Amino acid sequence: MNRILIVGGGFMGYSLSMALAARADKHEISIVEPNLNNKTLIQNKPSDFILYDDLEKVGIDFDFIIICSPIKQIPKIILKAAAMFSSKAVITDISSSKQHLNSIKLPKNFVSSHPICGSDKSGPEYADVNLFANKTVVLIHSESDYEEKLSKFWESLKMEVISIDLATHDKVFGLVSHLPHFIARAYKESLDGENINPKLFAGSGKEIERLGASNEALWDEIFSDNAKNIKAGLEKFEIALKRIRQKLT
Amino acid sequence: MNRILIVGGGFMGYSLSMALAARADKHEISIVEPNLNNKTLIQNKPSDFILYDDLEKVGIDFDFIIICSPIKQIPKIILKAAAMFSSKAVITDISSSKQHLNSIKLPKNFVSSHPICGSDKSGPEYADVNLFANKTVVLIHSESDYEEKLSKFWESLKMEVISIDLATHDKVFGLVSHLPHFIARAYKESLDGENINPKLFAGSGKEIERLGASNEALWDEIFSDNAKNIKAGLEKFEIALKRIRQKLT
Repeated sequence: MNRILIVGGGFMGYSLSMALAARADKHEISIVEPNLNNKTLIQNKPSDFILYDDLEKVGIDFDFIIICSPIKQIPKIILKAAAMFSSKAVITDISSSKQHLNSIKLPKNFVSSHPICGSDKSGPEYADVNLFANKTVVLIHSESDYEEKLSKFWESLKMEVISIDLATHDKVFGLVSHLPHFIARAYKESLDGENINPKLFAGSGKEIERLGASNEALWDEIFSDNAKNIKAGLEKFEIALKRIRQKLT
Repeated sequence: MNRILIVGGGFMGYSLSMALAARADKHEISIVEPNLNNKTLIQNKPSDFILYDDLEKVGIDFDFIIICSPIKQIPKIILKAAAMFSSKAVITDISSSKQHLNSIKLPKNFVSSHPICGSDKSGPEYADVNLFANKTVVLIHSESDYEEKLSKFWESLKMEVISIDLATHDKVFGLVSHLPHFIARAYKESLDGENINPKLFAGSGKEIERLGASNEALWDEIFSDNAKNIKAGLEKFEIALKRIRQKLT
C-alpha cells in the first residue's frame, strides 16, 4: 500500500484519484483542494479520500505526491512539498509544458510527468476514472532512482511510459498540442459576432471551435509557459498558410 | 419506386447508393463511374446497381439525378443531364461550395444540395451506408416545386432539410468548414520535416493534422471555388491570431 497525495482536485487530479481508488491494490489517497465548490463535489461522492483545503495542514508523509495544480503555482508547491515531506516521497507534476521547472532548483526527489490525456472540460464533476488507462505518459528524464519508482506508478495505471529531456518535451508538445490549441483559439475568436445556425456547423469547424473553447485560464498559462516553442511553430504555420493562400487567387 | 441516377461512385456517391439500396421502398439505382478501379470495387459488392462508365451511354429517364462528381465537372454535367433527360427528373449536386453554379444558366429542374457529412477518406472502399442518416442537408433555395420533391428525397434518408440562399450557404460554409480545413492544411504542412514520435501526438494535433490530410484534390477545388469567403474568414482569423499572439511575449 502506498500513501499518495494529490495536490489539486480538479478534472485531472480527481480523475487520477478515482483511477487510483479503482485499483486492486488499495492506496491511502489524500487530496488537497482549496476550492470549496470542488471540495464539496468530491466530498459528496462515495470515496475514502482524505481531504485537505491547504497543503500546510497536511501532517503525514507520502510515497507519491502528484501536483495537479495550475502551472504558475507548481514551482512553489514543489519547493514546499520537498521541505515538508521526507525524501522517500517521489514528487511529480503533470503539467503540459515544463519551462516553469527551470525557474527553481529542483529537489532530488522530483521527476516531472506529463500524462497525454485530458479534456476540454474542467472541474471534478467531469472526472473520468478511465482517463489515464492505455494512454502515454512522458517523464522528463532524470538520472535518479526516483524515475524508476515513478515509472512503475504510472505503469500500474496501465500507462505507457516514455522518457525524454525537458527541452525536447516542450518543443514537441509546442508543435503537437499547444500550437493546435493556440490556432483553435484564434479560429474560435475569429467567429465572434458571426451568427451561425448551430445545425450548419460542420464537424471540422465544430471540432476546432471546441478545442479553442478549452479552459482559457489553464491554456493561457500553457501558452505563456511555452511561448518560445509556440512562436517557432507559429512562424512555420504562417509560412505554410501564406503558401497555400497564394493558390486561392 | 423511383429511378435514381448517381453520377460519380466515389466515397459520397457510393455511400448514397448504399443508403438508397438499404431503404424499405426499393429504387432502381444507376451509377455512372468512369474510374475503372472504383467501378471494379462497386461491381464486386453484392448489389443491384446498374453501372455505366459514361453519362453519354445512359439511355433511360430518371426521377432523381444526384451529381457526386468533383466541383469543376459539375456545371458541365448539369447542362448535359438537363439536355439528356426529361424535365420530370430533379437534378441536384452535393458539392460543399456552390460558387461554380454561378457559371451557368441553371435548368429549371435543378436544385442544389449539400449534405453535411463526409470523411477525410475517399473512394468507394470507405463508403458508409449510414453516412447520411440523422445528418442535416442544406438545399439552395429555389422557388420551384422541384425543391419540395428533393426535400422529400433527402428526408426519406432520415435527413433534416434546411433551405438557404446560395450566397449565405457559401459564406457560412466558408467559415465553419472550408476555413478550418484550410487552416488544418497549413498546420499539417508546417509540421513537414519535423520528426515527431507518433506516440507523443496529442489528440488536438492529431485531429487537426487528420483534417489537413483530407483528399487534397477535392479540397483544392473547394478552396478555389469559395476563395472569396475563405479569404474573408482568413482575415478575421489572422487578426485574432495576432491579438492572442501579443499575449505570448
